[in-house]
Amino acid sequence: MIDALDLAAKLIACNSVTPADGGAQDVLQTALESIGFRVHRLHSSEGPDGPIANLFAIRGSGGPHFAFAGHTDVVPPGAGWASDPFAPEVRGGLLHGRGAVDMKGAIAAFVAAASQVETKGTLSLIITGDEEGPATFGTVALMDWMESESIRPDLILVGEPTSAHKLGDTIKIGRRGSVNMTVTVPGRQGHVAYPHLADNPVPTLARIVSALSAWTLDSGTEWFQPSNLEITDIATSNEATNVIPGVARARLNIRFNDLHTGADLVRDVKAAVAEIAPRATVEARISGEAFRTDPGALSDLVTGAIRDVLGVEPELSTSGGTSDARFLSRIAPTIEFGLPNATMHKLDEAVAVADLEALTETYAEVIRRALG
Amino acid sequence: MIDALDLAAKLIACNSVTPADGGAQDVLQTALESIGFRVHRLHSSEGPDGPIANLFAIRGSGGPHFAFAGHTDVVPPGAGWASDPFAPEVRGGLLHGRGAVDMKGAIAAFVAAASQVETKGTLSLIITGDEEGPATFGTVALMDWMESESIRPDLILVGEPTSAHKLGDTIKIGRRGSVNMTVTVPGRQGHVAYPHLADNPVPTLARIVSALSAWTLDSGTEWFQPSNLEITDIATSNEATNVIPGVARARLNIRFNDLHTGADLVRDVKAAVAEIAPRATVEARISGEAFRTDPGALSDLVTGAIRDVLGVEPELSTSGGTSDARFLSRIAPTIEFGLPNATMHKLDEAVAVADLEALTETYAEVIRRALG
Repeated sequence: MIDALDLAAKLIACNSVTPADGGAQDVLQTALESIGFRVHRLHSSEGPDGPIANLFAIRGSGGPHFAFAGHTDVVPPGAGWASDPFAPEVRGGLLHGRGAVDMKGAIAAFVAAASQVETKGTLSLIITGDEEGPATFGTVALMDWMESESIRPDLILVGEPTSAHKLGDTIKIGRRGSVNMTVTVPGRQGHVAYPHLADNPVPTLARIVSALSAWTLDSGTEWFQPSNLEITDIATSNEATNVIPGVARARLNIRFNDLHTGADLVRDVKAAVAEIAPRATVEARISGEAFRTDPGALSDLVTGAIRDVLGVEPELSTSGGTSDARFLSRIAPTIEFGLPNATMHKLDEAVAVADLEALTETYAEVIRRALG
Repeated sequence: MIDALDLAAKLIACNSVTPADGGAQDVLQTALESIGFRVHRLHSSEGPDGPIANLFAIRGSGGPHFAFAGHTDVVPPGAGWASDPFAPEVRGGLLHGRGAVDMKGAIAAFVAAASQVETKGTLSLIITGDEEGPATFGTVALMDWMESESIRPDLILVGEPTSAHKLGDTIKIGRRGSVNMTVTVPGRQGHVAYPHLADNPVPTLARIVSALSAWTLDSGTEWFQPSNLEITDIATSNEATNVIPGVARARLNIRFNDLHTGADLVRDVKAAVAEIAPRATVEARISGEAFRTDPGALSDLVTGAIRDVLGVEPELSTSGGTSDARFLSRIAPTIEFGLPNATMHKLDEAVAVADLEALTETYAEVIRRALG
């Protein structure tokens, strides 16, 4: 039997700020092998920031195949913690440390749960070291490898910290997609005293910004809030007060629901920009498409376990940022459920020991319902 | 008799990038005292970048009082010169060195001219070491001192390089004013995934930019081109792709003719901004008001000398950037006339030795007509 608090503390002690691993996946491998998992380590090819540690663990065989997904990497701690962010410490019923809720705590809870339940079929863990980073060499690389090995889960639970105020109050059945674009308007630099020799790109960019900001993308769906476009930056990189800038740029981000695809939105933005400024360019990077797992067997399974163990009726939500569920949902119905997220990405990140234990119990009930 | 080429070379040899003097005004003092000037040195109180060397030289007494104004400071040379910018060198009939045309050459030509002409009344030189910098402790400080000494010229000639293609083709009888403003639109920072918790200031700033860019300030006057507003920068200082910026800023510059004052324009911009965004703020710095010396005795005197000596009919212009004439014109009719400006502020700044000699002759004729 694995103890969730003990394993969570051991994981937190590993400094695994993306792309570092800090020994976290060694700790995890040891724990998983002790409860019957076969562990595959998959060091992904060097990304721009360094190699990425990934891990796939599997127990049993045949159907059904239930998978848990998560990440051992964490965001940088920042300065000003009450205690060392990589020296786990229980104070006042809270386990403190970077990753306590996002999401070493949930991984520990799931491994502890798996140690308590005898399972039929296949139970697996899909663990990446590149969720908080570019996410290019993490879950996507693991999925490629799984496909090459003909491994395909039937249901996937991602252990991201989805709970808002109290454990179990929210699970995610989808997430909006996200696309970033940079609009560049070329002009001709010159001296402010000789405007006829220059071509100021800023007024044109202002028109583009006004036009795009006025867009109504949709009015939301049954499961999603309205898609939204935000201008995140404008710049000319001009320091001088007497110079007409030669180029002006705007960055924007669109969070979009499943009425859109990233490609459609890029096409629409390009068309709108071209209408105002034919010489302007638009560079786009689609971070993730929207995903949705319609309420059904998987959400019934998870909400049932939450209701029975925690006495809470979870809200089915699609709000918040992106997660690796955007990739995993391509291969199987995917839902996210994990710890309260109040301290994630913040100073003094901490998980209540009671929540860690209750999550372990709930995950155990999920596993029982899926593979018991 | 002072030789213009010799004195110009000695001045160029002094590294006097604003606010440094590099010994330039010592060189000038020696030359001026040798031809009967009384020289007052005025080291202005420490500016933000260091103390400023200023010099006032006077010969004779009583009216009329004709003054020449100029600056010994130069802009930084930058890298890539064919020869050391502070080691004057004559090559192919050109004297090379930083300040050759802007405006050590003109100072040398005027001193050489003064050495050739016996003058009645008062001849003076108002020389600052802070024209290319903030101009706060230079000509303005000299003017304060002159006022305290009850020294007031009747006519002022500024030796800025006003000639465009050929010596004498252009003199300046005015310059537009200039005012810089920064418009700051406050918003509320937030995550792009939660736009309802944030308030993006960029669309509001875009509206302000569009409104101000569409202004027609005037359609020019007999002597001035139209006033013009340029947005010189826009910025949010937001690096992250997933953050709605908390503040957005635009910088603008207005070059304005004598239909406006800086204060009027600041008031108008503030009103226009307030109408769109009551919480936005506008910071303004008036660099200089427009000035104009109507064609008359002074321009007749200068154009007459140019016509007679150079055989050129000068254009009376008000174009280009600002100069210290904006200050000097408050106390007396002021006109600017100097060397061809093709290489000013550029690499390999150089003056034709023939131009230096012709300018000396022309300045001598100006002095004769004013005080002969």
